[in-house]
Amino acid sequence: MLNKRIHVSILIFLFLCSEFLFCQSDPLPSWNDGPVKTGIINFISRVTDANGSDFIPVEDRNAMFDNDGTLWPEQPVIQGMFMISQLKKKIEQDPGLKENPTVKAVIEKDKEYFAEDAEKKVLDLLAITMTNMTEEQFDREAKSFFEEAIYPKLNQPITQLAYKPQIELLNYLRANGFKTYICSGGTVEFMRQITEQMYGIPPEQVIGSSFKYKFVDDGDSNYILRESQINAVNDKEGKPVGIQLATGKRPVFVSGNVRSGGDIAMMRFSQGSKYPNFQILINHDDPVKEFEYSEKDNYSLEMAKKYNINVVSMKNDWNNIFNFK
Amino acid sequence: MLNKRIHVSILIFLFLCSEFLFCQSDPLPSWNDGPVKTGIINFISRVTDANGSDFIPVEDRNAMFDNDGTLWPEQPVIQGMFMISQLKKKIEQDPGLKENPTVKAVIEKDKEYFAEDAEKKVLDLLAITMTNMTEEQFDREAKSFFEEAIYPKLNQPITQLAYKPQIELLNYLRANGFKTYICSGGTVEFMRQITEQMYGIPPEQVIGSSFKYKFVDDGDSNYILRESQINAVNDKEGKPVGIQLATGKRPVFVSGNVRSGGDIAMMRFSQGSKYPNFQILINHDDPVKEFEYSEKDNYSLEMAKKYNINVVSMKNDWNNIFNFK
Repeated sequence: MLNKRIHVSILIFLFLCSEFLFCQSDPLPSWNDGPVKTGIINFISRVTDANGSDFIPVEDRNAMFDNDGTLWPEQPVIQGMFMISQLKKKIEQDPGLKENPTVKAVIEKDKEYFAEDAEKKVLDLLAITMTNMTEEQFDREAKSFFEEAIYPKLNQPITQLAYKPQIELLNYLRANGFKTYICSGGTVEFMRQITEQMYGIPPEQVIGSSFKYKFVDDGDSNYILRESQINAVNDKEGKPVGIQLATGKRPVFVSGNVRSGGDIAMMRFSQGSKYPNFQILINHDDPVKEFEYSEKDNYSLEMAKKYNINVVSMKNDWNNIFNFK
Repeated sequence: MLNKRIHVSILIFLFLCSEFLFCQSDPLPSWNDGPVKTGIINFISRVTDANGSDFIPVEDRNAMFDNDGTLWPEQPVIQGMFMISQLKKKIEQDPGLKENPTVKAVIEKDKEYFAEDAEKKVLDLLAITMTNMTEEQFDREAKSFFEEAIYPKLNQPITQLAYKPQIELLNYLRANGFKTYICSGGTVEFMRQITEQMYGIPPEQVIGSSFKYKFVDDGDSNYILRESQINAVNDKEGKPVGIQLATGKRPVFVSGNVRSGGDIAMMRFSQGSKYPNFQILINHDDPVKEFEYSEKDNYSLEMAKKYNINVVSMKNDWNNIFNFK
């Protein structure tokens, strides 16, 4: 009987310990203590407190994450790497492509050529390399890219490149009833190949740029054909538009990064929410753990200051960036 | 000790009873026994059996439902009712609108006028009545419509019009891990006002037609402006396109109806899935419980025959359509 009592006491003791540990456990271990980490934790605890005035119903807890430079590196941009590898294949199939001025500029690494009308020229390249094929063909080609490609400088497979602090943040948000989305300038079907595996984000929660599609049914089989016309450019003011079309509501949490000013509009869209909301803007200021680069006109950081957007210093706020280091 | 044994026996007995009742309970009580009901139940049981060869992983169990004539009546089309009520308000604000030939034709009930270029003219009306406003304004107007409008012939509030057998089917699919979507020609934000309440389908699982949006930020407040240009017509071949853009995969279950041929393309898209798949086409052949009408050229029923699509006779397959009858 005594023996039994001791057993029970040990169990209760272990239970209390685990409770204690659980309550104290850090949901964001790769984040250093500081105002951003404290801000995130306070925000999430406020909006999930059903008795508080800041409570957000579960169905309205949408969190949007940019991808390039926010969830994985962008030096170089990974979809650009895919584009180049596709371009090589296309030129093998059709050497005449080398006469196309945009293709020629890529081969000759002619940066001057892209100084003007850069967006249009990149879209041309996207169209040459990723359209006039079925969705199934595209899926195969993107899949094989992700299986093989090695990221320069870091010398790692692409699938190893997710930022660890952001994975912790995604998990923390989801554990608190948030629905996590990607909202990126990358093309939607390219990202969908990898977002579940790398970030735990399913295909239907990926918002991106897209081409015009056409449904073709020959009575026997049928497929979606990717045409070479652009359907949506999901960048800058295009991001709130993409979010509205896909979800019908303003997000309450947004994470983006400094480089092109692409994420400010969706942060402002979030700030117009009727609920409390939180935005973080990642600054690439860590040449040791990742890369150091800034924005030409400093627009994003200026907007962050003006609109109380939280700036994350990769150097100071993150103690660890990649799993492989 | 004996007493304890009896207690345990009673508990086991009750447990077995409840198991038995649970197993025997009919998930589709408003559906009459017959090949369609049996087909649905067999399909769902096959694809959810983790040991069977027809198993579909949970993340690929997407079910698409058309809305008008599939989940609620379309005699008249409900978004058409909203359009007319909006048009009345717009004319009050701007009597000059009556000179617009399309508006004039509506006022004069000039069916001849709509015999040619009907689609373009309806889109014009949609643009006049539902654009050049912010999303917030539109939400308010649509909400007040749904609160007030009474459906003619049935003399019921719109919110009472969900087809009961389809609600049972939606619940049955969801209970088996399916994600249920609406994929309709109606405009996406109009449907989103009501799909959660009526069908348990959240806004982000509604795929529909849409207008071009523009994000406007004056630095103080910001909003999405609905412009009068069409972004996507989510009908016929537009449905597989909308599904691919929104979800990135082929659905394995599709429900549509006979009237305009609008649902065949998404059914064919589903039939191209690598998984087992199931399609049901609702035929409005019940003048007593609902309405009786058919398709001018009989296209949908012919396609159903050609491609083994299951036809639901409202008269024979459903024993009950509305909650209020």
